[in-house]
Amino acid sequence: MSFDALWDGLLPLGRSSSSGGYRRFAWTPTDLSLREWFAAVAADQGLAVTVDRAGNQWAWWGDPDAVPGVVAGSHLDSVPDGGAFDGPLGVVSALVAVDALRSGGFVPSRPIGVVNFADEEGARFGVACAGSRLLTGALAAERALALRDADGVTMASALRTAGRSPESVGRDDETLRRIATFVELHVEQGRGLVGLGAPVGVASAIWPHGRWRADLAGEANHAGTTQLADRDDPMLAYARLVLAARDAASRHDALATCGKVRVVPNGVNAIASHVTAWIDARAPRAESVRTVIADLAELSAVTEESWTDETTFDPALRSRIAAVLDGPPMLATGAGHDAGILASTGIASAMLFVRNPTGVSHSPAEFATRDDCLAGVEALTTVLEELAR
Amino acid sequence: MSFDALWDGLLPLGRSSSSGGYRRFAWTPTDLSLREWFAAVAADQGLAVTVDRAGNQWAWWGDPDAVPGVVAGSHLDSVPDGGAFDGPLGVVSALVAVDALRSGGFVPSRPIGVVNFADEEGARFGVACAGSRLLTGALAAERALALRDADGVTMASALRTAGRSPESVGRDDETLRRIATFVELHVEQGRGLVGLGAPVGVASAIWPHGRWRADLAGEANHAGTTQLADRDDPMLAYARLVLAARDAASRHDALATCGKVRVVPNGVNAIASHVTAWIDARAPRAESVRTVIADLAELSAVTEESWTDETTFDPALRSRIAAVLDGPPMLATGAGHDAGILASTGIASAMLFVRNPTGVSHSPAEFATRDDCLAGVEALTTVLEELAR
Repeated sequence: MSFDALWDGLLPLGRSSSSGGYRRFAWTPTDLSLREWFAAVAADQGLAVTVDRAGNQWAWWGDPDAVPGVVAGSHLDSVPDGGAFDGPLGVVSALVAVDALRSGGFVPSRPIGVVNFADEEGARFGVACAGSRLLTGALAAERALALRDADGVTMASALRTAGRSPESVGRDDETLRRIATFVELHVEQGRGLVGLGAPVGVASAIWPHGRWRADLAGEANHAGTTQLADRDDPMLAYARLVLAARDAASRHDALATCGKVRVVPNGVNAIASHVTAWIDARAPRAESVRTVIADLAELSAVTEESWTDETTFDPALRSRIAAVLDGPPMLATGAGHDAGILASTGIASAMLFVRNPTGVSHSPAEFATRDDCLAGVEALTTVLEELAR
Repeated sequence: MSFDALWDGLLPLGRSSSSGGYRRFAWTPTDLSLREWFAAVAADQGLAVTVDRAGNQWAWWGDPDAVPGVVAGSHLDSVPDGGAFDGPLGVVSALVAVDALRSGGFVPSRPIGVVNFADEEGARFGVACAGSRLLTGALAAERALALRDADGVTMASALRTAGRSPESVGRDDETLRRIATFVELHVEQGRGLVGLGAPVGVASAIWPHGRWRADLAGEANHAGTTQLADRDDPMLAYARLVLAARDAASRHDALATCGKVRVVPNGVNAIASHVTAWIDARAPRAESVRTVIADLAELSAVTEESWTDETTFDPALRSRIAAVLDGPPMLATGAGHDAGILASTGIASAMLFVRNPTGVSHSPAEFATRDDCLAGVEALTTVLEELAR
């Protein structure tokens, strides 16, 4: 089973003809077609496919209930107009690596699994890594099921539409027991490996990061007749918040982004009545993030929607991987990943990064060369062989 | 036919249960229900209902092809989450005034008509007063039919869905010939009449006003991994534009509003690739508006989407109305109206304003007291009687 064949089969699913980017949102018909693709490929490889209580898909070579296994994988969903690599590269690489081991006659001492985590980007319901967080219990089922998408559809309702039973959603100990080790391969989302001149690297840590929401209330009014002095225009507060976020991030050695905004009523000749702003903030140190948010809170009340402490990947596992890969570079990342969620619940987890020549991610322009992707598959195959020997 | 009965019949149509405001957008099923309401009430009054090439509805008492008539009316569509009065008050008042004249035994020397102008707010397709502009030829049919709503639906397609023929859209000379005089009654959208202590006033002029669009391009990227220095984030340009618009308006004695924005991809953890901003600007003098826009053009390219010069209402007509209403206050307005479109094509036009105690408009909180509404009906009845005597 070649990398190219799998990759090319996945490329058309959920691609927007207008942007060229991907709109693969959790529990949509597009997502279901991705899940069908995963199940079909895994079945074709002779792997046993199961779905856990959180909706994540698992494809096993060997019986993980006999002895806990080594799992590789990532996710297939995307941000709005995202790239082809973020997520799918890890899933495809894992499937190809397992197939390479099998067809090469490797006899593993423990089962090997491939996972497709559900709803990693949180693009639809606003909580990233929802699949892995539900699996580990980091996200309560009750809270998740009540989350609403932009059309007001709850996750519970979306699951029902997708043919799943919301009642069964929750922490899944049976599945967690099957995972001895997890390795997620992912396209790098910066240019660290470009600077280091390496096609593949190993993650040292994930920066602490979170999402906040500011609800800016004003008074709807006519844009043509309301004197400036009589206005209560929340768009002005939003503009000040956007600039303050950038300024605070710059001063505190952090990243802060206002990428999403909702304006009511959003009419050309209507002063807005309400602006909802979202702020994404991250930094190498948690205090830096907290300081940025404290600065913004002086402008307007902000509500924390999610927070993830720094994740340090298992040092012993990292050393073992580094040794078998002949000393690849180690690097931290600002992006959250399912591997981080598993690591923070005590599962030995690691990540491999594949070089991104432009550093661009969450964009149709996201890219990795075929050679680097194949180097990633080779590295992952080597790592799985080492861990399942 | 009482004001209360007509008003109460109209109130439920297109009202949002969540905001309490109105979502009456051109050529939607809601709009069609408003048009049915108008046709049914007019037919009930024994008026002859016709629809012109632009889709505006006319209800005639007498034959306007024999001698040009006096027309009153306004529109029934709304901005997103608009109020109950902006538009409907003029239509209902006109219907009640005509009915009062008929039932009072008045014998007009010329026909009297009531009009419901289509698509006045431009909330769906972005061009205000589309119905009256198409009627007079101020808006070319070809341009109008190609306009798209937020879902990408063209006006041509929307018309077809609404059972109308896009091929017939265009300037309608036959209809224009029927209008000797037009009087639009409208809720005031500021607090001018509150200060003057009068329930009803007469419009002197409509400020010059326009809409501009700024297309702010950036580069989509991951909010968690892209260093600040590597970013090209158009949300920052948007924030600066919003604040600059307010500042320029303040310096040049104008109004400028950023009430609508579109962000692509609009994801919490994605740096935006594109922000489209709309600026509404108005002032008592055209130079002030031009100066505001010139200031903004220094920050980013802006495209003019619409422009309307100052409209001065017919002085002779104004004097005649003022005399018969015993010297009501005269006041200018920053809001565009169908009466302004007709006036600018040479049709003798006038406006009556009804006091708005809070000045709030384009909002669910828009309001006028029942007593002031009835005073408006009485004034309009007096004016129609004078003009059709």
